[in-house]
Amino acid sequence: MEKKGLLIVVSGPSGAGKGTVLAHTTEKYSNIKYSVSVTTRAPREGEVDGVNYFFKSVEQFEKMVANGEFLEHKRVHDNYYGTPLKGVQKHLLDGYDVVLEIDTEGALEVKNVYPEAVMIFITPEKLSTIEERLRGRATESEEQIRIRMKNALKELKQAVFYDYVIVNEDSQQGAKDIISIINAEKCKVKNNKKFIDNLLMEANNYDD
Amino acid sequence: MEKKGLLIVVSGPSGAGKGTVLAHTTEKYSNIKYSVSVTTRAPREGEVDGVNYFFKSVEQFEKMVANGEFLEHKRVHDNYYGTPLKGVQKHLLDGYDVVLEIDTEGALEVKNVYPEAVMIFITPEKLSTIEERLRGRATESEEQIRIRMKNALKELKQAVFYDYVIVNEDSQQGAKDIISIINAEKCKVKNNKKFIDNLLMEANNYDD
Repeated sequence: MEKKGLLIVVSGPSGAGKGTVLAHTTEKYSNIKYSVSVTTRAPREGEVDGVNYFFKSVEQFEKMVANGEFLEHKRVHDNYYGTPLKGVQKHLLDGYDVVLEIDTEGALEVKNVYPEAVMIFITPEKLSTIEERLRGRATESEEQIRIRMKNALKELKQAVFYDYVIVNEDSQQGAKDIISIINAEKCKVKNNKKFIDNLLMEANNYDD
Repeated sequence: MEKKGLLIVVSGPSGAGKGTVLAHTTEKYSNIKYSVSVTTRAPREGEVDGVNYFFKSVEQFEKMVANGEFLEHKRVHDNYYGTPLKGVQKHLLDGYDVVLEIDTEGALEVKNVYPEAVMIFITPEKLSTIEERLRGRATESEEQIRIRMKNALKELKQAVFYDYVIVNEDSQQGAKDIISIINAEKCKVKNNKKFIDNLLMEANNYDD
């Protein structure tokens, strides 16, 4: 078996329950590392540099962009956010599976740079579940809910570009699905070429 | 989720431990049906028609071939063996996953007829393990072992045409790998097109 880990990209509309599914995944499967993003926004109270984010100045960030140091990056309002390539690569080479939880736009950027990425889309069974969850939080105005639903829709339209879709009816089952996907991907012939080559080399000893 | 089951084709050299892995798979996962093959050879003591095999005459078998009733079939010495299409299709439509344990030649025939088939190759970590197991049985002559090793080699060369390879170091782990593959395949976007279409149709209600 090759030792290199898998890059797993997880997306899905806000309200799909990605966070809970990923938390349960980590409880059941310890070989996962999460990528720490880089941002130019100011740290919020309690946020720790290198844990929640790597906090950088706009100049530092733009230099990193120019040096090709990001797997994907984007600007939201006046702030930059990005996934640093180096940290991800290190974890993969150490044999860890790395999970990136990012929006569909960033996800497709990652797939472009790193085609072996395993793309997982998490969605509730019905779109109305998202609306109910947003209303349940009771923190959002009608206008905010409308905007979030529009975004959910935009994200959903990208689901067909993913490898897998997880219907999150039960977050424990969702976590099991992610772990199944990781196990199955590690069994793929394309991820075991070296092993098969070695076996065929051994086989030559038997050939006459 | 679509209800139709998966067709799972399992191959691997004799001595790889396929039987034990599949037995453990059935213990852990009950949604599997095994295909009963058709043969023209005479029933052995204790074998039941419709359970171990469907026993047919050569004329009946040749008529089935002519009618395209087989997913794959072959002649071994003076006997025919075949996998009947109809039984497999019925189980798949009933939502069962169907396992075919066949040699690589038959397996590639099945893939041709049924491209959605999930192809799993089971192998030990080293070819020498097969030789040790054959010698361990102590029922085979040196010449028979030589022939079996030659066949193992022929089978191994086909591994690259499979979707997945399971390295059978531990048959319980091998069974878990098969179940992971089944779960992962059921999460594939291509196996959930209808679900995604329905979700997008619901999404249209939110669009303006």
